[in-house]
Amino acid sequence: MSTQISPRPLGDVIQSVVEDPANGRLGGNLAGVACDARIRQHALAIDEPMALGGTDTGPNPVEIVLAALGTCQAITYRIWAGLMGVALDEVRFETEGDIDIAGLLGLREGVRPGFAGIRHRVILIGPETEERYRELMEAVDAHCPVLDIVANPVPIERVLEVRAA
Amino acid sequence: MSTQISPRPLGDVIQSVVEDPANGRLGGNLAGVACDARIRQHALAIDEPMALGGTDTGPNPVEIVLAALGTCQAITYRIWAGLMGVALDEVRFETEGDIDIAGLLGLREGVRPGFAGIRHRVILIGPETEERYRELMEAVDAHCPVLDIVANPVPIERVLEVRAA
Repeated sequence: MSTQISPRPLGDVIQSVVEDPANGRLGGNLAGVACDARIRQHALAIDEPMALGGTDTGPNPVEIVLAALGTCQAITYRIWAGLMGVALDEVRFETEGDIDIAGLLGLREGVRPGFAGIRHRVILIGPETEERYRELMEAVDAHCPVLDIVANPVPIERVLEVRAA
Repeated sequence: MSTQISPRPLGDVIQSVVEDPANGRLGGNLAGVACDARIRQHALAIDEPMALGGTDTGPNPVEIVLAALGTCQAITYRIWAGLMGVALDEVRFETEGDIDIAGLLGLREGVRPGFAGIRHRVILIGPETEERYRELMEAVDAHCPVLDIVANPVPIERVLEVRAA
């Protein structure tokens, strides 16, 4: 399965934030944002692009969310094609999201920090009718974990612990 | 920054699904779920653990969402500590989510496929007062992109394209 992720967190808006001297504070504040996430035996490098003050050693967190959505859809198509007996040779995705960096930086009121919207294109390659693949899509969209997580609210319990330097 | 991800998608529920002959359909259907996500110049291996029929070449999509949440919080703490002039030596996270695989597989009614809940522990290490770090936390949680994406609904436009094999 291949998943094409086309996020848009680095568009004109971000560029103007970085270039505008009034917002020039960004450079210094973002120094050292490279993160190392440990997931069982896996390590994941997550960073910000250089335009955002990072070192671009990996995708940034919102790009990672798009990758999770695209691949979770791909896997759920595989599972439900199997469960429903739908022949499916290949699944491809193109997933892109709209984000305005002004939300993260608090530059304007009323701008949400996360994606305002996501466009997700599914390409199914196989011998079945389009109608059959639409039935498959319905089942997948009702059972896809990351689609549910992104499309619907998830309760997040937060605990803060402060330790002396 | 270090982020400890402790997802729970592989608990007793999944194990029982895999082991229960009534649900033994899982093995075959999940063959070949390893995904290769392309994000600009970055490639991300996303897979399922062997207990779920994958080859475990990378984290799975819901683990990736937890990694995105933890690291986005870490980066947003860095940014807002800078904006607010709060001294901060280190940010650590422990993020875990509860997921019931029955939702993905449609085994029981009323089980959502995504996380029922996420617990997110933030550890701030630095010289400021706890009150000051609580002010920082409020600003961060109001501006963190992935927190917003996971906690609140995001509109997702889906398009299906069918191609002959």
